[in-house]
Amino acid sequence: MEALLVSSPASVRYLTGYSGSNGLVLLSQSESHFFTDPRYGLDAAKTITGKVHVAKKPLIDAVAGVIKRKKLRKIGFEPAWMRVEEHQKLQEKLPAGASLEPAGGWIEELRMVKSPDEIEKIRRSVQLNSQAYARTMRGVHPGVREREVAAELDFQMRRLGAEKTAFDTIVASGPRSALPHAHPTAERFAVNELLLIDMGAVLDGYTSDMTRMAFAGVPPKRVRDLYKAVAEAQLAALDAVRPGVTATKVDETARAIFRAHNLEKEFVHSTGHGLGLEIHEVPKVGKKDKTKLKAGMVITIEPGAYVDGLGGVRIEDTVLVTANGCEILTPTSKELVNL
Amino acid sequence: MEALLVSSPASVRYLTGYSGSNGLVLLSQSESHFFTDPRYGLDAAKTITGKVHVAKKPLIDAVAGVIKRKKLRKIGFEPAWMRVEEHQKLQEKLPAGASLEPAGGWIEELRMVKSPDEIEKIRRSVQLNSQAYARTMRGVHPGVREREVAAELDFQMRRLGAEKTAFDTIVASGPRSALPHAHPTAERFAVNELLLIDMGAVLDGYTSDMTRMAFAGVPPKRVRDLYKAVAEAQLAALDAVRPGVTATKVDETARAIFRAHNLEKEFVHSTGHGLGLEIHEVPKVGKKDKTKLKAGMVITIEPGAYVDGLGGVRIEDTVLVTANGCEILTPTSKELVNL
Repeated sequence: MEALLVSSPASVRYLTGYSGSNGLVLLSQSESHFFTDPRYGLDAAKTITGKVHVAKKPLIDAVAGVIKRKKLRKIGFEPAWMRVEEHQKLQEKLPAGASLEPAGGWIEELRMVKSPDEIEKIRRSVQLNSQAYARTMRGVHPGVREREVAAELDFQMRRLGAEKTAFDTIVASGPRSALPHAHPTAERFAVNELLLIDMGAVLDGYTSDMTRMAFAGVPPKRVRDLYKAVAEAQLAALDAVRPGVTATKVDETARAIFRAHNLEKEFVHSTGHGLGLEIHEVPKVGKKDKTKLKAGMVITIEPGAYVDGLGGVRIEDTVLVTANGCEILTPTSKELVNL
Repeated sequence: MEALLVSSPASVRYLTGYSGSNGLVLLSQSESHFFTDPRYGLDAAKTITGKVHVAKKPLIDAVAGVIKRKKLRKIGFEPAWMRVEEHQKLQEKLPAGASLEPAGGWIEELRMVKSPDEIEKIRRSVQLNSQAYARTMRGVHPGVREREVAAELDFQMRRLGAEKTAFDTIVASGPRSALPHAHPTAERFAVNELLLIDMGAVLDGYTSDMTRMAFAGVPPKRVRDLYKAVAEAQLAALDAVRPGVTATKVDETARAIFRAHNLEKEFVHSTGHGLGLEIHEVPKVGKKDKTKLKAGMVITIEPGAYVDGLGGVRIEDTVLVTANGCEILTPTSKELVNL
């Protein structure tokens, strides 16, 4: 491969620092070319090292132009990111002798192990996220609407300096907590209900991710048992995290606990995922990913169990793989909050 | 074409109401099939009409299964949305005799003319957006940080019931207002500077979009002249909007005004864009799109001029094309605000 065309927005940011929505990078053995449109031209010229191309025509035309001038022949592209349309357009404009070859996951793999600078940024993002949670929870009581809580969480994150939220904040009460990706509604958090909050911030480009649970009133045995089972699975999975262990082994550790509690079918997602510039990165801590953990990786550990009608429980921390095990970056207590 | 595979998240929402991040729709002449993963299974089963497939394996495998069972042969796909990887996987799993054909823009074209129900939703989104702006501006004065203003705008949108912002809110003061897509920074809005605010809300899935300008102190002649030229271009473009006129003609109308003021090079983007479930939809109100406007389309009109060092001015309304011209949905005054 003589060059790699990078389409993933997060990988473009990783390589150049550019955080807008329309950028491409063409890496060759000796040079880095960055492409954007005139909306970002002034900004790009000031901040990006390497060659900057501000294209009025579609970016892909400018990419083809560089491929031609530099006489590049084998150009890798990212099949998980490139759209069929762009691929076809570029294919049509390639000079004779040049070809596109699928080369997915290269930059993602580079990004998997974080530098000390990146770890510091994630640490600050996680701390900010927990601080926004703590500030918001002071005002949460039965009777508040899900979306009021979500608005307050987002506001506190922004006030503390977050660029934005890492994903749409989830605030789900009562039976809606059984929908793992529920949108906050106008419904009010009621007495004798569970409240699930899943939130993350973006600070300096880097994400954080945390899920915590509250209950309004005294939780009945069914809820306590569900919470205990999930907490047991989460602690067991955290305990399994260390260099050399596969991601799938960590997932299986959580799954085994659910199996013992007869809750395996209620655990409908994976145990966790890598995070960094994106909220979901490799490795996927699930049934299939055999990636061996390495020191410097940052992942979430977030088992959950969802019972239709009753509600769901999920407990999630952001975790750094260290030389001997892991460091839980999330400072928030994981006791079930009583409101 | 016997079927159409819909990958665009907004088109999936348009067809099914599903607003999560992992859904596909396969439309055949007689049936609609919706595919999602178990995280969204409970939600989908409750809200979506048509056949719902909750797939534990990649969605594309489940799509291939339906194509096989229903003996579909020519299947359209959306090249502007489908990734090369998904396309290759589906291609490999297709039964003999079946083929994938590019069929882009069908649903986008359907979505271009809004139903009365959609127009009502956009109208409410626009009103909410303007209300959040008015509430925030009461507290904006020289000395506030860009990102504090952005956090407050977003908070007010959410408090008024917005699901989220339609895009990352832009708050740019002084020379940074010359970056058309600036991120809010920790810098403070200073005396004798321009302030550009570009914001939009999502309410019931539908977006809004508005840009307004303020100045701290008495604007000098250079700023007043720049503002007057942009306002003239915006009014002229609004005046050109009516059924039967091409989008490019509306763009050219704004461009001609800038040319007369010797500001053509400072107008680095298009005059506007359609909006609805997405913040950027067809038609593009730019140099190339020859779509004839029709009653029921909703577009933005947002000319701007950006002067390196001094700052930029943009004025933007959300506009409904009516039988005789247009209705400016945005209720906010477009005078330059003096702070």
